[in-house]
Amino acid sequence: MNDYYAHSLPASSKLTQKSVNRCFDGEQHYYSHDSEATKTCMTFSIYLPDEALAGHSCPAILYLSGLTCNADNVTHKAHFQQKCSELGIIFIAPDSSPRSAPRSDNNENDSVPNDERYFVGQGASYYVDATCAPWSDNFNMQTYIVDELYDLLHVEFAINSIGVMGHSMGGHGALLLGFKFPSKFVSVSALSPVCSASESAWGQAAYTEYFGDDKALWTESDASYTIESVGRQYSTILVDQGAADDFLADGQLQTPKLQQACEKAKQPLTLRYKAGHDHSYYFIQTVMNDHIEHHWRMAQMS
Amino acid sequence: MNDYYAHSLPASSKLTQKSVNRCFDGEQHYYSHDSEATKTCMTFSIYLPDEALAGHSCPAILYLSGLTCNADNVTHKAHFQQKCSELGIIFIAPDSSPRSAPRSDNNENDSVPNDERYFVGQGASYYVDATCAPWSDNFNMQTYIVDELYDLLHVEFAINSIGVMGHSMGGHGALLLGFKFPSKFVSVSALSPVCSASESAWGQAAYTEYFGDDKALWTESDASYTIESVGRQYSTILVDQGAADDFLADGQLQTPKLQQACEKAKQPLTLRYKAGHDHSYYFIQTVMNDHIEHHWRMAQMS
Repeated sequence: MNDYYAHSLPASSKLTQKSVNRCFDGEQHYYSHDSEATKTCMTFSIYLPDEALAGHSCPAILYLSGLTCNADNVTHKAHFQQKCSELGIIFIAPDSSPRSAPRSDNNENDSVPNDERYFVGQGASYYVDATCAPWSDNFNMQTYIVDELYDLLHVEFAINSIGVMGHSMGGHGALLLGFKFPSKFVSVSALSPVCSASESAWGQAAYTEYFGDDKALWTESDASYTIESVGRQYSTILVDQGAADDFLADGQLQTPKLQQACEKAKQPLTLRYKAGHDHSYYFIQTVMNDHIEHHWRMAQMS
Repeated sequence: MNDYYAHSLPASSKLTQKSVNRCFDGEQHYYSHDSEATKTCMTFSIYLPDEALAGHSCPAILYLSGLTCNADNVTHKAHFQQKCSELGIIFIAPDSSPRSAPRSDNNENDSVPNDERYFVGQGASYYVDATCAPWSDNFNMQTYIVDELYDLLHVEFAINSIGVMGHSMGGHGALLLGFKFPSKFVSVSALSPVCSASESAWGQAAYTEYFGDDKALWTESDASYTIESVGRQYSTILVDQGAADDFLADGQLQTPKLQQACEKAKQPLTLRYKAGHDHSYYFIQTVMNDHIEHHWRMAQMS
């Protein structure tokens, strides 16, 4: 659309460019590609500030979305573009799970499993590798995020470090993957995260499907247990939580578990409860700039 | 949802509150009400900074959306909340036309006319009062905006001045209503506006339906003709236009007509072409803060 600014994909690129829109001093792009990890066509959005478009290596933030969301929700509603433009940060938003979308070879992936519960099927995933049928064929989002997409981003774009953040189920993903793979990420933050999937009703329903009765896998895939187990990895992590969030009150988020885990792990945690705020994108946009600045500061120190 | 912060409607309120979400230092609200002008149930969003929630009178911006949009698009995607929170400005986004929605008295309004052309039927309106059947029963958006909603806002909220802005078709509406009713508004701005509905193919199709052959009505309802006719009304007006906007190239926007009209009217115009930017909300968010600050400055001087 804007040829003058368009990012040039390498000739060998595995990506298909879906859209380009100029936004502040940079561009919002969408790409799709065939994933080996999920055996589906996956879509992600990426905001590239002008520094990145000019070929300079930039720090990046990988944003993991919550239940029911795809790349659109955060890209349209979270208001990250202005701050990323100002600071020269790349912002990547993958989908939250495999979907029954056609692959580029025109094979319909109608075999991708689903579930009528929004916290289990497509639009969920918890960013783990499922071990039980029928989920294990496609629901390999840990491998997708930390290996396949991670490597692809480094090949296709000039990225010098990646921080991971997420919202709700994606906040659990950010905490889990950030502490399971600390060599891959320079910073971690979360917005209204599920802090312990294995002690949240949403997470228990999903892990029953993905892992069956293997409680060792439940524990290994639980953010708070992982933090407690691996100990301090980052100089600090930033977590914002709306104090008027209904999911906090009903126990889905298990925020005190994260606080206890960080204390045991001696992992410094900046946990802020925001009066009056709920679980919505209106809350996400309110604290987004603080999170981008957190990742920017950590990237400068890395 | 957040009772502590909730705006209290007067006991006599004609509004039904649909949602409340805390956002920055303020709240995003949605309301619906039965409109006499359109004979339909109309919905609008309103952002209330904490000053307004505390009962202090604030300046307001009335935002008129473009073709196909309702109150959601700008409220989700235009990123106005942070700046309005900082400056203490109320931001109101009405729907762009009457819709076939049920009224609160449970009469289905399936009689609201529509058209398969998105630039004519529901989601259009040009913010004029149609004179031809079947449109004239409901498509009275000029009366809705400058009389009914205008008065309702002053009764229900503590507003000390209103500026009008809009995007695309809504930019035409802002220019038209701002110059037709200069005693009602303290400031005018537009994003990627249709500058002359009567010389745009979109507008010609709509005005043929709304006004038939009465070309005097076409002219009275054309933003550029109106500016030329009424002369200077504001110390300046701000218009931003993406230079890579396809609708600019294909003649839908008629931007030079606005420039000529302002020159003839001796109406100071700040018209900025933004390299690389298109017609999307990615452009709107890029220039939104400048527009809010424009209206804030004009409100201080009023």
